[in-house]
Amino acid sequence: MSVQVDAVLGAAGPALADRMARVEVRLAAAAAWADGALAEHARTAIAAGGKRLRPMLVFLAAGENGPADDEGLIRAAAAVELVHSATLVHDDVLDASALRRGRPTVVAAAGRDMAVAVGDLLFSRAFAELVRNGRIDEVRVLSEASSALAAGELLQREDAWRADVTVERYLRRCELKTARLFEAACELGALEAGGPARELGAFGRRIGLAFQLLDDVLDVSGPPERTGKPRGTDLLDGTVTLPFILARERDPGLPHPRAVTTPERAAAVSDRIAATGALEDVRARALEMVAEAKAALPRADRALELVADGVVDRYA
Amino acid sequence: MSVQVDAVLGAAGPALADRMARVEVRLAAAAAWADGALAEHARTAIAAGGKRLRPMLVFLAAGENGPADDEGLIRAAAAVELVHSATLVHDDVLDASALRRGRPTVVAAAGRDMAVAVGDLLFSRAFAELVRNGRIDEVRVLSEASSALAAGELLQREDAWRADVTVERYLRRCELKTARLFEAACELGALEAGGPARELGAFGRRIGLAFQLLDDVLDVSGPPERTGKPRGTDLLDGTVTLPFILARERDPGLPHPRAVTTPERAAAVSDRIAATGALEDVRARALEMVAEAKAALPRADRALELVADGVVDRYA
Repeated sequence: MSVQVDAVLGAAGPALADRMARVEVRLAAAAAWADGALAEHARTAIAAGGKRLRPMLVFLAAGENGPADDEGLIRAAAAVELVHSATLVHDDVLDASALRRGRPTVVAAAGRDMAVAVGDLLFSRAFAELVRNGRIDEVRVLSEASSALAAGELLQREDAWRADVTVERYLRRCELKTARLFEAACELGALEAGGPARELGAFGRRIGLAFQLLDDVLDVSGPPERTGKPRGTDLLDGTVTLPFILARERDPGLPHPRAVTTPERAAAVSDRIAATGALEDVRARALEMVAEAKAALPRADRALELVADGVVDRYA
Repeated sequence: MSVQVDAVLGAAGPALADRMARVEVRLAAAAAWADGALAEHARTAIAAGGKRLRPMLVFLAAGENGPADDEGLIRAAAAVELVHSATLVHDDVLDASALRRGRPTVVAAAGRDMAVAVGDLLFSRAFAELVRNGRIDEVRVLSEASSALAAGELLQREDAWRADVTVERYLRRCELKTARLFEAACELGALEAGGPARELGAFGRRIGLAFQLLDDVLDVSGPPERTGKPRGTDLLDGTVTLPFILARERDPGLPHPRAVTTPERAAAVSDRIAATGALEDVRARALEMVAEAKAALPRADRALELVADGVVDRYA
């Protein structure tokens, strides 16, 4: 997500940059909980998380200043990012991915066994971190979001290689796999600051859903130089997304996902999906979700609006 | 563990049988949280847990009657068993095991992808279940035990196929992989009942350690008709345990773990380990731990003593 980080930092006030730096320190400490090689793999996993969008949402949802004592906010942000990192490590096991963000994945560097266990460890540390806030309502938010992530992953595996995935089922998967953790990030920030958790959570869920839709558009549209992966990677993995679903309604001759067996074929099918106009439709849906998210914000908040816009800019 | 369940039930009073039945209902509900095929795999995973020793420890640590409202106790017991089940599912992924307790594993029935996600789901549901007790101290206990399990798994993978694993490192692995969840079970029961959590936790940790030591003896001694697996399975998987470590000190000609490549060879090496007297020594250590566990109990408790004895009887 090419959120204009500088703009967000400017709009959010000086506390944000400080907090973003402190969450890195906490994440490093969580990785260092294990020893030796284990800590190194945990660090690799956490580094692969990337842009720290979820911690940023925790901080922004807490408001410009947030609570006077913001240690709880830092812990909540670290906990959300740890769950995200754990999920990425396990996803890479499933996909046997060699690289993430240009670096070797844990599964590639240390094997499947280590990667499953590293994911489990990061997951456990997320809860251990959040528990320190002493707030059972926060733990509830994280445990429900984690359950959703796993259920979303299961749904994706169940629907793999199926040409008949419905729009409804696709949206449910995105909700579980992506939107719920965005929602949790916003809720946790609001809970720590005593703000409107439900409303800010709804904002997070909407932009999370838009984020996933546009991610799926980017997989088809590329360009690879910007996305860092060949076009049609989802189809090659058997993951049927909204662009394919809508395109197939318009172009019944679109090949079955099982027939997409080479990168060349994936690129060609991507072109054919784009030719149906499906990408514009998916993008329009995502834009609508972002607009709804902004309109339903419980307070005018330039930084949150900029993050929502970042979801869109990513595609532009 | 051939805990004499009838004897324990007799000693523990009528509440135990009722609670053991209710924890099954809660576990079934946790599995049913997902839908369709997912719920079925989750059920398979939970069924593979077996004897429900950890829930039993939760209940026994709470004392004969426990708290007047025992719903929290049921949830704590279910949470511990869910973490245990999640660990088993992930262990089976790592070992690519086809059977557990005579039934197909999740990884065998549904593939590696599903199994990783089913484990993640059970893990998340454990926390979601425990959160309902509204007690942050309980969540802390479970998150630390879960972290220990993952760290123990990582340690086991790091030490795989190494002939030079030290006794100290082996014991640390057992502590992390097994003893800490036994400890957590006892602590949770005590916390719900307002009992001495630290003391009962120490009891659980000690019998957990003894349990693992004797498990590792059984892997070498068999007989397969009783253990349900060929002798020397640990060595074939590259897992170096205390019997091997002690035997190698006495019989330097014992083959390197890497040389143990067939079941026949594993059985022969098992014989050679047994011939050094190492099994008796490991068993003596375990008996000592059980005796310490019983001696340090904060109250005379026939049921807990019977469970401790069950760890020993298992070998006899």
